[in-house]
Amino acid sequence: MNGQEAARLFDEVRAKRPLVHHITNYVTVNDCANMAICAGAAPVMADAMEEMADMVSIAGVLVLNIGTLNDRLVGSMIAAGRRANELDIPVIVDPVGAGATKYRTETVKRLLEELDVAVLKGNAGEIATMAGSDAKVVGVDSHGISGDPVEICQQYSESLGVTVAMTAPVDVVSDGRRTYLIENGHEMMERVSGTGCMASTVVGAFNAVSTDRASACASALAVLGIAGEKAAVEARGPMSFRTKLFDSMFNLSAQDVALGSRIKEL
Amino acid sequence: MNGQEAARLFDEVRAKRPLVHHITNYVTVNDCANMAICAGAAPVMADAMEEMADMVSIAGVLVLNIGTLNDRLVGSMIAAGRRANELDIPVIVDPVGAGATKYRTETVKRLLEELDVAVLKGNAGEIATMAGSDAKVVGVDSHGISGDPVEICQQYSESLGVTVAMTAPVDVVSDGRRTYLIENGHEMMERVSGTGCMASTVVGAFNAVSTDRASACASALAVLGIAGEKAAVEARGPMSFRTKLFDSMFNLSAQDVALGSRIKEL
Amino acid sequence: MNGQEAARLFDEVRAKRPLVHHITNYVTVNDCANMAICAGAAPVMADAMEEMADMVSIAGVLVLNIGTLNDRLVGSMIAAGRRANELDIPVIVDPVGAGATKYRTETVKRLLEELDVAVLKGNAGEIATMAGSDAKVVGVDSHGISGDPVEICQQYSESLGVTVAMTAPVDVVSDGRRTYLIENGHEMMERVSGTGCMASTVVGAFNAVSTDRASACASALAVLGIAGEKAAVEARGPMSFRTKLFDSMFNLSAQDVALGSRIKEL
Repeated sequence: MNGQEAARLFDEVRAKRPLVHHITNYVTVNDCANMAICAGAAPVMADAMEEMADMVSIAGVLVLNIGTLNDRLVGSMIAAGRRANELDIPVIVDPVGAGATKYRTETVKRLLEELDVAVLKGNAGEIATMAGSDAKVVGVDSHGISGDPVEICQQYSESLGVTVAMTAPVDVVSDGRRTYLIENGHEMMERVSGTGCMASTVVGAFNAVSTDRASACASALAVLGIAGEKAAVEARGPMSFRTKLFDSMFNLSAQDVALGSRIKEL
Repeated sequence: MNGQEAARLFDEVRAKRPLVHHITNYVTVNDCANMAICAGAAPVMADAMEEMADMVSIAGVLVLNIGTLNDRLVGSMIAAGRRANELDIPVIVDPVGAGATKYRTETVKRLLEELDVAVLKGNAGEIATMAGSDAKVVGVDSHGISGDPVEICQQYSESLGVTVAMTAPVDVVSDGRRTYLIENGHEMMERVSGTGCMASTVVGAFNAVSTDRASACASALAVLGIAGEKAAVEARGPMSFRTKLFDSMFNLSAQDVALGSRIKEL
Repeated sequence: MNGQEAARLFDEVRAKRPLVHHITNYVTVNDCANMAICAGAAPVMADAMEEMADMVSIAGVLVLNIGTLNDRLVGSMIAAGRRANELDIPVIVDPVGAGATKYRTETVKRLLEELDVAVLKGNAGEIATMAGSDAKVVGVDSHGISGDPVEICQQYSESLGVTVAMTAPVDVVSDGRRTYLIENGHEMMERVSGTGCMASTVVGAFNAVSTDRASACASALAVLGIAGEKAAVEARGPMSFRTKLFDSMFNLSAQDVALGSRIKEL
């Protein structure tokens, strides 16, 4: 796993333009749609039970994001996830705010139990909460965890049988056997609502074109991080940074990725 | 129908500032609100059954967009549409994703059957699907149709008794008698989520000030297309293009429209 | 109450980073999230009954915005508001579109009756409608009121026992005893969807760090207005203005606020 591999997968996303079916929150949904397009994928947002089976069946990946969950949406997530499992379409779960309320934590447990999840992608507090470690999640933000992020990801991934991607200043991805650290990104990404959700979209797009979950996740996070680094150069604040983040992703070349990736295998 | 007529209607939108009542999706709803303002109209988004009759009665036009439909919203669309029909307020339908799932296709059929729809505005795949032609719709994107776009629009409009507006690199508008081609626009509009929805908003605004559906639709699409052409000049990617698209629409003069419109009557 | 006090409160928001729990509309929700961050607070959006008690209990303030209300959301607003009242967490109500439909007006009445509301923040038409004065509200826009804004705010605040903040070219804040006029802001703020909702977010953030409702509201509106003035300098239209509004808020210093505030006590 290196920059060349990330670049190759990025090319494949653009060549195949996979449909990323999102069941997601209404806060950052537009960001997810535009980020999917800028990364080279095609977004669709659909959450009505009546069309779950149909929509999932044409998707390359299913992204379940609980940012503004409610029982209707959770029902659709379960139905969509089962259909995706039948069709061998990977399911990505973003446990937004897990740890902040019992409802969120329990819902993520339910998704992990009832579905065959390919990737669980969250921030440090969310992943640590789900892994049973001490963590503080305030709203949808991680306010620190106790324990080593790498160990948490490795052990939790192994016990769960799911690839775990933890976003943080240094991202951690582990499938239980292999563990990657991704050092790309910029602190301004923390100052924009939705970068975590966008990361799940990009992780989804990369997992639609590769069954090697860990390298697909690491590549996706490196690519988004490189786009963030480029965006930060001329940004004057969070919103101009956001504009440039989308533009940078759209304009990113495979060579930018090959040269700019900072992925380390442990 | 020429650029002068489009410019005249544009002036009228700005003079009357019609209220565009949207029942729409949660992906691009903010874009619709801001595009309504930049075009000179006033947006309102309301979808609760409890206020449908009240809200429709003060609107200049009703825009029904099924981008993230569910049964609650469809019920509100039917109620709002009936009230709009009683009050002679035009109803615009955007059949987002028709053809991608049966639920979407059936819902559009139901709206067309139960309501007196003024304009059906969709992309090529959506319109072709509804017209009964072969088309491929993946998610919310058109992936090609079989058959001639102009013939599809003409015949479908005539049989349906509804003005049909098909957005594509060259847009087609037909009311069954007259058919217009609109050659304005820029390919970058395809790289931003929501330009189709924004088009429905602008089509709505223009139909609020004119009962000549075909010329109102052609004018609206020309105006949005010209804004897109201007926005593309300095854009560095999809998101800076989007920022400039709104600014361009806001700054567009009637003269820009008169000179820049490329509308052809067949 | 002067610019120094506004600056002091602004510093306190940034130091304490209060969690602003929103139950809000799906049109401008992303703007509220990003504005909370740029102002120095932390946003969370959650509206499921199942997590209301949990989420409110970690919040610094609860913002209830009825922009796209429905019965499910209103139920969650009541439940969240009661919990906030138990815990002495301030409740801010934004009566979006009150006066446009009976459902909106009645819902605001219900929130004011069933909850102990700290601040009612709306545009001129919304506040005048709730106060029982003649007003015209079209969609979500105020189209003029009869009567004097200052008298309306003073009398309504006194009779209601709630601090009232009315946004207009000159904002008015009254707690029934003290009344402030805030002359900051820029007309471009009227050309962007969501500035009213963002104002409620910022008002929420300031009320999370101060129990002096009137001065917190006046400070919040002054701070947002100053950000708007700075944003307008280089804006080329509504959307580039919006980008700069967020960036300006993020970059605003306490000194900018101390020097730029135009708050007058009557």
